[in-house]
Amino acid sequence: MKLNLDELVLFDHHCHGVVNEDLDRAGFEELISESSAPAVAGTTRFDSQVGFAIRRFCSAPLGISDFSEPDEYLRVRQELGSSKVNRILLEASKISYLGIETGHQPKSILSPEEMSEAASAKAYEIVRLEKVAETVAFQHLEVGGNPFELWSKIVAELDKSLCRAIGVKTIAAYRVGLDFPHSQPTDDEAVLAVANWFKTLEPGQVPRLADPEVIRALIWYAIKKETAIQFHIGYGDDDVDLHRCNPLLLTNLIRAAADYDARFMLLHCYPFHREAGYLADVFPSVYFDVGLAINYTGSRSTSVIAESLELAPFGKILFSSDAFGLPELYYIGAKLFRDGLARVLQSFIDEHQWPLAEAERVASMIGFENAIRAYKLEG
Amino acid sequence: MKLNLDELVLFDHHCHGVVNEDLDRAGFEELISESSAPAVAGTTRFDSQVGFAIRRFCSAPLGISDFSEPDEYLRVRQELGSSKVNRILLEASKISYLGIETGHQPKSILSPEEMSEAASAKAYEIVRLEKVAETVAFQHLEVGGNPFELWSKIVAELDKSLCRAIGVKTIAAYRVGLDFPHSQPTDDEAVLAVANWFKTLEPGQVPRLADPEVIRALIWYAIKKETAIQFHIGYGDDDVDLHRCNPLLLTNLIRAAADYDARFMLLHCYPFHREAGYLADVFPSVYFDVGLAINYTGSRSTSVIAESLELAPFGKILFSSDAFGLPELYYIGAKLFRDGLARVLQSFIDEHQWPLAEAERVASMIGFENAIRAYKLEG
Amino acid sequence: MKLNLDELVLFDHHCHGVVNEDLDRAGFEELISESSAPAVAGTTRFDSQVGFAIRRFCSAPLGISDFSEPDEYLRVRQELGSSKVNRILLEASKISYLGIETGHQPKSILSPEEMSEAASAKAYEIVRLEKVAETVAFQHLEVGGNPFELWSKIVAELDKSLCRAIGVKTIAAYRVGLDFPHSQPTDDEAVLAVANWFKTLEPGQVPRLADPEVIRALIWYAIKKETAIQFHIGYGDDDVDLHRCNPLLLTNLIRAAADYDARFMLLHCYPFHREAGYLADVFPSVYFDVGLAINYTGSRSTSVIAESLELAPFGKILFSSDAFGLPELYYIGAKLFRDGLARVLQSFIDEHQWPLAEAERVASMIGFENAIRAYKLEG
Repeated sequence: MKLNLDELVLFDHHCHGVVNEDLDRAGFEELISESSAPAVAGTTRFDSQVGFAIRRFCSAPLGISDFSEPDEYLRVRQELGSSKVNRILLEASKISYLGIETGHQPKSILSPEEMSEAASAKAYEIVRLEKVAETVAFQHLEVGGNPFELWSKIVAELDKSLCRAIGVKTIAAYRVGLDFPHSQPTDDEAVLAVANWFKTLEPGQVPRLADPEVIRALIWYAIKKETAIQFHIGYGDDDVDLHRCNPLLLTNLIRAAADYDARFMLLHCYPFHREAGYLADVFPSVYFDVGLAINYTGSRSTSVIAESLELAPFGKILFSSDAFGLPELYYIGAKLFRDGLARVLQSFIDEHQWPLAEAERVASMIGFENAIRAYKLEG
Repeated sequence: MKLNLDELVLFDHHCHGVVNEDLDRAGFEELISESSAPAVAGTTRFDSQVGFAIRRFCSAPLGISDFSEPDEYLRVRQELGSSKVNRILLEASKISYLGIETGHQPKSILSPEEMSEAASAKAYEIVRLEKVAETVAFQHLEVGGNPFELWSKIVAELDKSLCRAIGVKTIAAYRVGLDFPHSQPTDDEAVLAVANWFKTLEPGQVPRLADPEVIRALIWYAIKKETAIQFHIGYGDDDVDLHRCNPLLLTNLIRAAADYDARFMLLHCYPFHREAGYLADVFPSVYFDVGLAINYTGSRSTSVIAESLELAPFGKILFSSDAFGLPELYYIGAKLFRDGLARVLQSFIDEHQWPLAEAERVASMIGFENAIRAYKLEG
Repeated sequence: MKLNLDELVLFDHHCHGVVNEDLDRAGFEELISESSAPAVAGTTRFDSQVGFAIRRFCSAPLGISDFSEPDEYLRVRQELGSSKVNRILLEASKISYLGIETGHQPKSILSPEEMSEAASAKAYEIVRLEKVAETVAFQHLEVGGNPFELWSKIVAELDKSLCRAIGVKTIAAYRVGLDFPHSQPTDDEAVLAVANWFKTLEPGQVPRLADPEVIRALIWYAIKKETAIQFHIGYGDDDVDLHRCNPLLLTNLIRAAADYDARFMLLHCYPFHREAGYLADVFPSVYFDVGLAINYTGSRSTSVIAESLELAPFGKILFSSDAFGLPELYYIGAKLFRDGLARVLQSFIDEHQWPLAEAERVASMIGFENAIRAYKLEG
């Protein structure tokens, strides 16, 4: 019995827009690494799992021969033009639902509406808590606002956002680590924390929120709103202190939020995905994916996917690509996930006699059904 | 050359009794998860590795077709009745020796003697340190005992227990984390720690021991008795702070105990089983298993077993099921372990030309010989 | 397409000399474990992955039948004599370049020149920072030197060493853990730290450097020299607090050194090799290997090698054996690495259609080219 997941319906619950400009080699290499530095002299970012996966899988849809040299790949890519490449690869990804996080936009990227059209997918928005707070604080600063009024302005903006968005995202991991204070603040504490932060801001400068008390207030806002909260966990760029991004550090927050119906969506999690699986097992509110790690481990992603199917109940595992900028990252994210999940489930069929239909059922749960249930999008 | 371990002799050095009552679906699901919460709405605890393993492996011995639906499985199970199911699955587990930990009994479960009979196995007792201390403290409280006499009462009870038991168990990981103070207390310090704890107890209430000084005193009692000490490590229920259950946190305790012949039996260890393997390699007193993780990773348990055969000398690895409540957990614990170990050793035969006899010798060490040596049950 | 790496050129960038004396069974067993204790009664160090690998792979070159019993193996070994065994196994390792760390010499071992001759390889020296500081401090103590002059003496000796050596090694992990203070000290602070340490030394005793401030000063000396700095990371002997050897603990040091061209060579890294791969990905200065872990995980080393090929760019992964004492450790280090890397890359060829030539190119990078580039030995 051979499992085929080529047509598995996918809900990419955490991704970003693609760039709408032609990229030279340096610009392209910048987008296939989490490092903020260029590749070391004498090396190229293409000599990596993600680079090989792009050369292997993205050539055919673009009409290039497999494993072409990077320069040849980029030459054809430029000839086609970024709009066409975006459309070809996004369409070929066959992703049905997108949860697009709109808080990270250093380049000109497609909006959720444009992404929806380019990918022929239903697009939902995810709002980044820290970005909203920074934007509102900047505006409040510009108009000379009262520090003690800032929290209510942020709340108003978040309330508005949540009328259209299906959840929020926090980058607490990047800004303060996951060992920030976890207990629920009172409203007065939230107002004061935000006011204190506001007083440190420089006029004319867009602020960078890295205050643990303010981030705590934002996360508790979301918990009390009983929405889905995406947490960056584990692997990311060189800005992260990875040892402070272990999801186990959230244990007390998850416990403290048990009375609310908020859901914790742990993103990426590598190399702490087994720890994430434990949390998803014992805490009803926890879901997780291995997102970013699929693209960046490439030929090894099957093993990472396999490790994500250990402790966690099958109803708590999600799919995401965390693609940003390049449609290639959508395409290989979906391709590696479908292929890898099929290989893992096939090994369960072969070694443990899972019925094919049960393997397909589990694949559909992970592919999209869990996301629809967890984000409450049924019906 | 094909390795077959279907008849491998097993010493399940850490397990519990089975429940002797008929279970409905909710009651059964409760016993196939480490979570204290029921499955999330729209999901079932059967949709997990352990649930699939039960449907796959336990059906045949009970005369049901493989991978029957949970309701059908439970219907037949209830028809047979719990006594019969217990006997069928325990017998079919073909476990020769049981090390039964008697400190965890929230339900009516079989005693070591009853387990011995139902499983046709030799049963040994393991005494839970914290449970003894709590029980003696409760009795001492009832009779209005002197706080400074409690330690000697606990020691007397432990001394008595160790006349019949082959070792002790500590749940320091659950109660205080493994980073409790590690140096050896004096007798006076032990007396004082226990007295201070005693003074905090409420009359009429069975106490819950979570005092690091008292737990230290209990563990050092066991070290000086030069017995085998089982430590819960790593994965467990939602009561655990998993990041405080890394076995490496015990390093200084292990060093401090080097002059005694106590043995440290690290249980489960997932996801820190590689760390446990390191400790088993460099410290003569350390043994470990991947116990609970075998059942709860199911189709993935082969990989977990494989990872437990890295640094650790083959003479330091043990088998346990950590089965509690359900005879299914004994049966799949034994089945997954025999099958998984056979697959791992077969890969060593195929790729590294291990002689079949050497693979069988290693399997016997891990299956039961190491436990017999480490618990000093020879001859 | 079948990848064969039997002739892969290797640069073993971190190893030690071999012992030049005949060894009895106890002496041999001592050298095939990281433990400072003998095997537990009733067991032998041969019953381990490294023991099995020696019996499997080293027999043939010495003219013994595969998997001979340890006593038979050692009998033939003694008949041949250690010089001959050294030469046979080192030659058979087919290692082209050796980076020999000379700071660990509890026994009489071959010098880099002797190793070069015995192995028919080009040998380079790596200087151990702590050893130089200890040696110079001892001499300074003997002549009644001024504490405030010690730092300049150490610097002078290191300067001299770096005229011949290609890099340095630090065992900060063993001595103080990797969470030592990371910021750059001023010259005055270095002088003072060293003087304070010097004042604690006992006349007539070779000192053991375990002062975090002094170790910091030594490492920053090397950073400012812009040399390659080998860090012991992860798995080692029972002297190590493994939880303080996680390479992520170096994150701030790596960031603080970003303006210098020093390179951080993270050694072994097990079980934190995925964490090391992350650092190698996001920080240009970081390289790593799984060194010691290859020999000590034996039949499981393929998986460890596979896990080292996840996040890290292929241009940042190195080979080392960390062999010490026994030529067997060189031989199996090279053998297991070539075989394991071939199996891993073959799986990429089979499952992800890597072209054979690309797999060979990646193997050459990891085998020797990355080391030549990173140690600046080109041309």
